[in-house]
Amino acid sequence: MFHSKVFVTLKKSILDPQGKAVEQGIHSLGFDAVGDVRIGKYIEMDIDTNSREDAEGMTKEISDKLLANLIMESYSFTTEPVKE
Amino acid sequence: MFHSKVFVTLKKSILDPQGKAVEQGIHSLGFDAVGDVRIGKYIEMDIDTNSREDAEGMTKEISDKLLANLIMESYSFTTEPVKE
Repeated sequence: MFHSKVFVTLKKSILDPQGKAVEQGIHSLGFDAVGDVRIGKYIEMDIDTNSREDAEGMTKEISDKLLANLIMESYSFTTEPVKE
Repeated sequence: MFHSKVFVTLKKSILDPQGKAVEQGIHSLGFDAVGDVRIGKYIEMDIDTNSREDAEGMTKEISDKLLANLIMESYSFTTEPVKE
């Protein structure tokens, strides 16, 4: 069994109004040192296979096809074995 | 300058209907080995300080006060120095 974590973010060239709104909220709490806030999606999943190669391949294919809109978003992921 | 990444997820005891919907989408693509899909938020930010302790403290306080609803959600974060 493997566990994958996928991080989907808007590409750097795309404006992130939700991030800007959160940044304003952070500043209104008094944290003026914080900047360039960006919001993304975080997806966790279990993959029932014994092969790391399979688990990574599935995570990549699922991210490409379903989780990320590659026109506006980019993603990264980690895949680690689960102790059973 | 430090860069923090915050991962906010629903607590394990809370149902995640969005995750279930994505899981059904993944299964309909033919990936039956995938289960326990959970969706969360991913927040990145820059923090303009030279102290790792300050950067981690600010990230924790911002997460507690603004980013996570601690009744339903839990979070983890990483804080790393940025090469300038």
